[in-house]
Amino acid sequence: MNFISDNANGADPRILDALTKANSGAVLSYGGDPGTARLQARFGALFGRAVTSFPVVSGTAANALALATLTPPHGLIFCHARSHIMMAECGAVEFHSHGARLVGVEGENCKIDARALAAAIDAVPRNFAHSMQPATVTLSQSTELGTVYAPAEVRAIADICHARGLKLHMDGARFANALAYLDVAPAQASWECGVDVLSFGASKGGALAAEAVIFFDAPDASDFMYRRKKAGHLISKMRFVSAQLEAYVEDGLWLGNAAHANAMAAQLAQGLKNAPDVRLTAPVQTNMVFADIPTALAMRLREGGAIFHDWGSTGKDRVTIRLVTSFATPQTDVAKVIELAGG
Amino acid sequence: MNFISDNANGADPRILDALTKANSGAVLSYGGDPGTARLQARFGALFGRAVTSFPVVSGTAANALALATLTPPHGLIFCHARSHIMMAECGAVEFHSHGARLVGVEGENCKIDARALAAAIDAVPRNFAHSMQPATVTLSQSTELGTVYAPAEVRAIADICHARGLKLHMDGARFANALAYLDVAPAQASWECGVDVLSFGASKGGALAAEAVIFFDAPDASDFMYRRKKAGHLISKMRFVSAQLEAYVEDGLWLGNAAHANAMAAQLAQGLKNAPDVRLTAPVQTNMVFADIPTALAMRLREGGAIFHDWGSTGKDRVTIRLVTSFATPQTDVAKVIELAGG
Amino acid sequence: MNFISDNANGADPRILDALTKANSGAVLSYGGDPGTARLQARFGALFGRAVTSFPVVSGTAANALALATLTPPHGLIFCHARSHIMMAECGAVEFHSHGARLVGVEGENCKIDARALAAAIDAVPRNFAHSMQPATVTLSQSTELGTVYAPAEVRAIADICHARGLKLHMDGARFANALAYLDVAPAQASWECGVDVLSFGASKGGALAAEAVIFFDAPDASDFMYRRKKAGHLISKMRFVSAQLEAYVEDGLWLGNAAHANAMAAQLAQGLKNAPDVRLTAPVQTNMVFADIPTALAMRLREGGAIFHDWGSTGKDRVTIRLVTSFATPQTDVAKVIELAGG
Amino acid sequence: MNFISDNANGADPRILDALTKANSGAVLSYGGDPGTARLQARFGALFGRAVTSFPVVSGTAANALALATLTPPHGLIFCHARSHIMMAECGAVEFHSHGARLVGVEGENCKIDARALAAAIDAVPRNFAHSMQPATVTLSQSTELGTVYAPAEVRAIADICHARGLKLHMDGARFANALAYLDVAPAQASWECGVDVLSFGASKGGALAAEAVIFFDAPDASDFMYRRKKAGHLISKMRFVSAQLEAYVEDGLWLGNAAHANAMAAQLAQGLKNAPDVRLTAPVQTNMVFADIPTALAMRLREGGAIFHDWGSTGKDRVTIRLVTSFATPQTDVAKVIELAGG
Repeated sequence: MNFISDNANGADPRILDALTKANSGAVLSYGGDPGTARLQARFGALFGRAVTSFPVVSGTAANALALATLTPPHGLIFCHARSHIMMAECGAVEFHSHGARLVGVEGENCKIDARALAAAIDAVPRNFAHSMQPATVTLSQSTELGTVYAPAEVRAIADICHARGLKLHMDGARFANALAYLDVAPAQASWECGVDVLSFGASKGGALAAEAVIFFDAPDASDFMYRRKKAGHLISKMRFVSAQLEAYVEDGLWLGNAAHANAMAAQLAQGLKNAPDVRLTAPVQTNMVFADIPTALAMRLREGGAIFHDWGSTGKDRVTIRLVTSFATPQTDVAKVIELAGG
Repeated sequence: MNFISDNANGADPRILDALTKANSGAVLSYGGDPGTARLQARFGALFGRAVTSFPVVSGTAANALALATLTPPHGLIFCHARSHIMMAECGAVEFHSHGARLVGVEGENCKIDARALAAAIDAVPRNFAHSMQPATVTLSQSTELGTVYAPAEVRAIADICHARGLKLHMDGARFANALAYLDVAPAQASWECGVDVLSFGASKGGALAAEAVIFFDAPDASDFMYRRKKAGHLISKMRFVSAQLEAYVEDGLWLGNAAHANAMAAQLAQGLKNAPDVRLTAPVQTNMVFADIPTALAMRLREGGAIFHDWGSTGKDRVTIRLVTSFATPQTDVAKVIELAGG
Repeated sequence: MNFISDNANGADPRILDALTKANSGAVLSYGGDPGTARLQARFGALFGRAVTSFPVVSGTAANALALATLTPPHGLIFCHARSHIMMAECGAVEFHSHGARLVGVEGENCKIDARALAAAIDAVPRNFAHSMQPATVTLSQSTELGTVYAPAEVRAIADICHARGLKLHMDGARFANALAYLDVAPAQASWECGVDVLSFGASKGGALAAEAVIFFDAPDASDFMYRRKKAGHLISKMRFVSAQLEAYVEDGLWLGNAAHANAMAAQLAQGLKNAPDVRLTAPVQTNMVFADIPTALAMRLREGGAIFHDWGSTGKDRVTIRLVTSFATPQTDVAKVIELAGG
Repeated sequence: MNFISDNANGADPRILDALTKANSGAVLSYGGDPGTARLQARFGALFGRAVTSFPVVSGTAANALALATLTPPHGLIFCHARSHIMMAECGAVEFHSHGARLVGVEGENCKIDARALAAAIDAVPRNFAHSMQPATVTLSQSTELGTVYAPAEVRAIADICHARGLKLHMDGARFANALAYLDVAPAQASWECGVDVLSFGASKGGALAAEAVIFFDAPDASDFMYRRKKAGHLISKMRFVSAQLEAYVEDGLWLGNAAHANAMAAQLAQGLKNAPDVRLTAPVQTNMVFADIPTALAMRLREGGAIFHDWGSTGKDRVTIRLVTSFATPQTDVAKVIELAGG
């Protein structure tokens, strides 16, 4: 009963199979293989637009390389104050960008508030040597709280960016979960609402270690190839990274996996809501449930075999817990947790 | 008939199998899994000494992270003038180290000449603000020319380093090929002859994307964990990287694969030596053959289906070619090339 | 009537004279001159303790070099949320430290609140690869609001730092103004209350371009000499930077100049307090006066010849202005402003 | 009798006087003062072309900031193998450029050989992720050996650069000495022969600490203002840096000073050439004399009061010495050295 994160599970067997299929014969290394070319075309079809895509092996690499490509060292990157990029990547963006600065913006449910964003950008004197200069905005879809931006919300943020000369990046480590919730086409949740570059996650959805950086406008990708190489992220047997991504988007595997994870979280939320003394602390829209529960219940859940993170506390004898579901979460685990909670 | 590089081939099926085995159940992510712990113990046993090891996904990452950990931004890193790190990693060391400088040292057969190294280090004024300061030496075992340092040669270089306060790094992307040639234990070719940190390669020997940085003295590893994370090289489902490495060193797979590659190169060298108008330009000790041949022969080989790199030219109508063998090179391919060459 | 900043004025003539005195004869360059050695001894006497000091030419350089020396690239630097280092140095700390991150801490009157600081540090998971690690704290004495930390307040912050393994830096661009206000010895306001390294400012107090980084513990200075050189801050004719600093601390010039500036601000504050419709928005402790005044008065002051910065607004028809006095502010300018304000 | 370097002497009194003149009144800080604006216009007149100029305080800063502005982190900068930037700036270029690499090119008399340069650039695979990419060339005028490029030689190098998409930087720490030797207008030795950006030195010619970065094409200066600020090189009382530069180019002071230094070196060379057992090892074109002399003579010179650097040795009992003259070198010192040498 592992609800600790969606990367605690292994890989989807269909993606493992794809590795075996990709293993035959000799091909050009470093991304010169046919599979990597096919993948880019595939992304183009998926997004209804020619894209420039680069497979990498981690979400941190995808985010940091994408943002560094669009942000000069004296640039400011606006993000949610409690976003993954701010809290949990050990300064990857600062490192890859050679010292650009993250500026935390507030907003409910871990979503950047558009007005607060505009105010934060506009507070910076432009064309002024003493101030770092606004360059990019990054938002997570879905967020670290499992919440989802509606396309119109992304559009509003994109408009704020573009009107001020900034680019918009989307951290899509859980893009599939957001899409499954929104039930819109990939284009509608990305470039059509103004996203310039997307970190397209697959690891959390069933891949072993594969993400793609997808630029919707080729010129933005300018020196990405050099940044990726010198960072050590140009994998020699690239075919194996590309094969994971290809299998991931093949036959709707990715959206199916995301839909399952979301459904498990919805069931969990439904059950916990009915449990005594339990309060959900965030809307459950994708694959995360945050619940404020008695400490005693947390202990009971753990004794019953559930594994999960504590996420702060709202008072004496109470704790907020985070339960993350994934493509591999069995329905029985969900039922067991609900039962333990008395829901 | 692909002789272009040892990363043109896919993965060893036994390593692919290991991925499937590693796929069951939920485990801690980011290297907290049992397989990663087991791997470190395994390396300890293999090297006859407690080690601190970190799995990563590329040789460039292994080299750059290892050297950056041991070299301050104002440091000098001495390497062979035509080493991979100097020629083919797009400034990865400069990037990860925040601007340290590579100093090329000459030496025959792509091996650093010990005297030239000592002279290069000693030419730098120490404790002097105007000069970057000697910090590390890195050598490749085996080299970019397929040649191998004898343990006594490594020892000589290590002594030069240590007498001057420098650390010694070994780029072991093809460490297995060197060991197979030397027929010594891993310890004898590494820490016993003074190596402080080793990039232990597996990708070229049959893994999909797996290398390990192995520190022989724990304090040297100091801030490696932060460097790896902010570089985007802390893979969330680390079990899959560790599993490759574990399978790679299991039951001698790695040395067997290296021995095969070396044997294929030896046969190739033997055959070509007997071919008319062909001259080997470097000693063939591991899995690479460099041959100076008539341009017409190069064309004939390619028409016959051989794929390989040109490596400069020694005169009109002549070209130097590089043929690389791997764990997957079939004996029939070798025979065919020899036949085409008339050897 | 220039109240725009204390760097709008030129240099104290006694410091200009010192340049002429320093001009005779040939000496070793790059800080090997006798004046630079004398200066370090002089600082030692001034602070009652052996120090390691480095002259530089700007406060930004002093701060960024000092902090970079004590903070690894994955380090966190805690500062006041509206400090100069955060707002007005264009990412100098991020640049010199290769990507360390500034964390803004709140506190009244631009002074870091000790409890908020402790909480901010303690909120960071230690020895954890996903989080940047707390390394240093920097406070400004006096602050950007002209306020001053009492030695006991600095001590409280230093204790928080040292108990947690962090170092404490003091941005003393206006250290003299703080000392003049506190009426304590330099030692009492620095190392005796726990400061590890001090940016000792002179430019704002009458020098042309001179500051010193003063380390109270020599080992902390470790690689400063290399950092300064590669940043382009090792001035060849160092004698001229050192001479400014020597003249600055000679015969109490620095404290006299600061006392004058403080006195002018005090007079200004006293007069404005009595003016109709004027409200001081921060305690006036050194050489800055912040006043909330009618927009019409601001216009009248400017028409009368006063030059100063707007510093936000507290409502319709009102503006907060900042008036900075310096060693060169004539008493008549102060009187004139008060008169214009009707105070 | 100080011949150790041209920065061992103090400042030209006329430049000191200019500081006093610049000291009156309050002006905008950080380069917003009228003197700094006037200086840019003055440079425009001097070079016969609108320029974008930035005063800084050291040659290292000028060079590193200029090159970093024109070179991406994955860029290659070609310079002479024994240039100042390579040997004596502690990695300043690597630091400011975030890891770009210097590539040493050979050439007689410390001048880059045009053919060798072209070959070095052309040896780098372009548009190839594994190789850092050629971006800039930097040459010193005059060189570290005191030699001078003829305008046609600079032109040849510039043509090589521009044909390949590289920019050309000139390290003009001793630009005045070169001009005095060449007897051409500033334009003829800079932009008219293809220089894109010039580090215009004044410190060695009589200033206290002043250099200017002069871009001949405004768009090249793009983000220089941010780079300068975050490096700590935007001096608050900029008027004092600008005033030095203005005085330096006023009434031909700079060229007069350079002519004197050159004349002293010429006399020295002439005298030493006639001395027994003395051999000049480089053409004496500006203010440096390199001479291969008996060790016994070196000792005699030092006993006689001469101060100078040893510059290697050509054999037993012989040493190469470097004698540098400056604007402040008295003719009597030159005569004394010649006399001691028996010339």
